[in-house]
Amino acid sequence: MNRGRGLVQLYTGDGKGKTTAAIGQAIRAAGNNFKICFAFFFKDFEKHPTGESQILENLGITLYNVVLEYPWNKESYDYENIRQECLHALYFVKNKIYTENFDLVILDEINIALRDKFLTEDEIIDLIQKKPKQTELILTGRGATEKIIQEADLVSKIEKIKHPFDQGIGERVGIEY
Amino acid sequence: MNRGRGLVQLYTGDGKGKTTAAIGQAIRAAGNNFKICFAFFFKDFEKHPTGESQILENLGITLYNVVLEYPWNKESYDYENIRQECLHALYFVKNKIYTENFDLVILDEINIALRDKFLTEDEIIDLIQKKPKQTELILTGRGATEKIIQEADLVSKIEKIKHPFDQGIGERVGIEY
Repeated sequence: MNRGRGLVQLYTGDGKGKTTAAIGQAIRAAGNNFKICFAFFFKDFEKHPTGESQILENLGITLYNVVLEYPWNKESYDYENIRQECLHALYFVKNKIYTENFDLVILDEINIALRDKFLTEDEIIDLIQKKPKQTELILTGRGATEKIIQEADLVSKIEKIKHPFDQGIGERVGIEY
Repeated sequence: MNRGRGLVQLYTGDGKGKTTAAIGQAIRAAGNNFKICFAFFFKDFEKHPTGESQILENLGITLYNVVLEYPWNKESYDYENIRQECLHALYFVKNKIYTENFDLVILDEINIALRDKFLTEDEIIDLIQKKPKQTELILTGRGATEKIIQEADLVSKIEKIKHPFDQGIGERVGIEY
């Protein structure tokens, strides 16, 4: 379906609401029969299923794990391996996802790859600039830089005013995952 | 299902992502079998269906229009009528929604009622304080005040860095509704 030019949306900042906003956007788009791809960086939803993943899949949304688990154990991880995995993810987005005529493509937590220096600004900018013209592209995650913000058409910075984590309340099922 | 104490989440600010974050949170919760109510203030989804409303309903989420259309025409609207409608919405939330054992209740755009003085701070604080203990409550909309922020456990302020409306791009189907 030709919907005209798709824009680039960016959700960044340290508050809760970036991935959930992308999920909400996917649901709204799905209700309008968009063809949607939700690509997860650093979230292995097959190993650690989330409340949202099964519902998104049931709605016909294509899910991809483009980069597997986040390297929580900074002392033992192999930087170069993760760098290669992220580069492969860029290749996969450009050569597979971008060729499948999606109306909406979500690259969830991709900004983390920039923040943690697994990808460079230029590599992400290249990915943004190569998106198919009609595709709406959403990038989420903390760590978006000025240059990435310049490339986007819509930017929301989600500021944490309060978060229960700071009160010692841990991750809650149905809320954080 | 007893999930322990529910918290109060608040999404405010002038950027895109408040309602979509609430939708995303509802989807994540639905995937974990929460019993969910999505109550809309100032959005008549039966008259103006949105992409999300049908999908939320199909997932078994209870939808209510608690206050109908937003009074766009400021010159002709009857303030007292809308004030009464908002007061009735508070009554409905407390005496109907709060008695139905929902795990998650979303009051979408309720902050607009405060911003536009259809409801007072004290009326909304009373509503927050009367929520059932186990219910997670989400309030969205611009215009949350310091006192409302104090009542919440989680507050994200979504700052507009860029929005296509400012470039003259209007509301887009599948994206804004």
